[in-house]
Amino acid sequence: MSRTIEDRLARVTFDDRGLVAAIVQQWDTREVLMMAWMDAEALRRTLTEGRVTFWSRSRGDYWRKGDTSGNVQYVRGAKLDCDGDAVLISVDQIGPACHTGTHTCFDADDLEPVAGRDAAP
Amino acid sequence: MSRTIEDRLARVTFDDRGLVAAIVQQWDTREVLMMAWMDAEALRRTLTEGRVTFWSRSRGDYWRKGDTSGNVQYVRGAKLDCDGDAVLISVDQIGPACHTGTHTCFDADDLEPVAGRDAAP
Repeated sequence: MSRTIEDRLARVTFDDRGLVAAIVQQWDTREVLMMAWMDAEALRRTLTEGRVTFWSRSRGDYWRKGDTSGNVQYVRGAKLDCDGDAVLISVDQIGPACHTGTHTCFDADDLEPVAGRDAAP
Repeated sequence: MSRTIEDRLARVTFDDRGLVAAIVQQWDTREVLMMAWMDAEALRRTLTEGRVTFWSRSRGDYWRKGDTSGNVQYVRGAKLDCDGDAVLISVDQIGPACHTGTHTCFDADDLEPVAGRDAAP
């Protein structure tokens, strides 16, 4: 693999908005904490600064996680998926990941699926 | 929470393409296996059939994971995130999750970030 930051960014398939989906996972417990979006500059900062930066579609600005809330995400690892349109960021999350105060952004709304074969009831 | 399938689907914020990001996680090891896309019908099938169905943007068709490859994903759980634009599907994955044959879709491309504070070297 090429190791310069430009070569790494060039492997990402940004969508027609210039964004890639970023899945954030706690490095040790492997909980999925949240999903947000990065443009090339947000990903560049995330890969080089040791802190996770997103692109806020609603505010149209960069958003370094924890700068306002204190709930910092320290980078531990980052992987690109097979078709280049999702990155999996491994972090050490300080405090709750969700702006609602819950530990993860997936804690509040259970979609209650029917379970498949062999699943516990 | 409302429990009818229509009420559950109505809580999802589909994007301007009618899609929601679906993160798929192995239920016991908590590995993130892949990310793909669902429209309302794919999510409806996923929540009601016990098997994971995506919408393929490249093929413009539904894609029930494992129908061709045998690498089925049996549904264990499904959560919606705080702003409704990502679902976290917990599954029991049969065989490799990635069409390239790797265990997950995030196994092949390390973006080699600089680690943040307190991270192991």
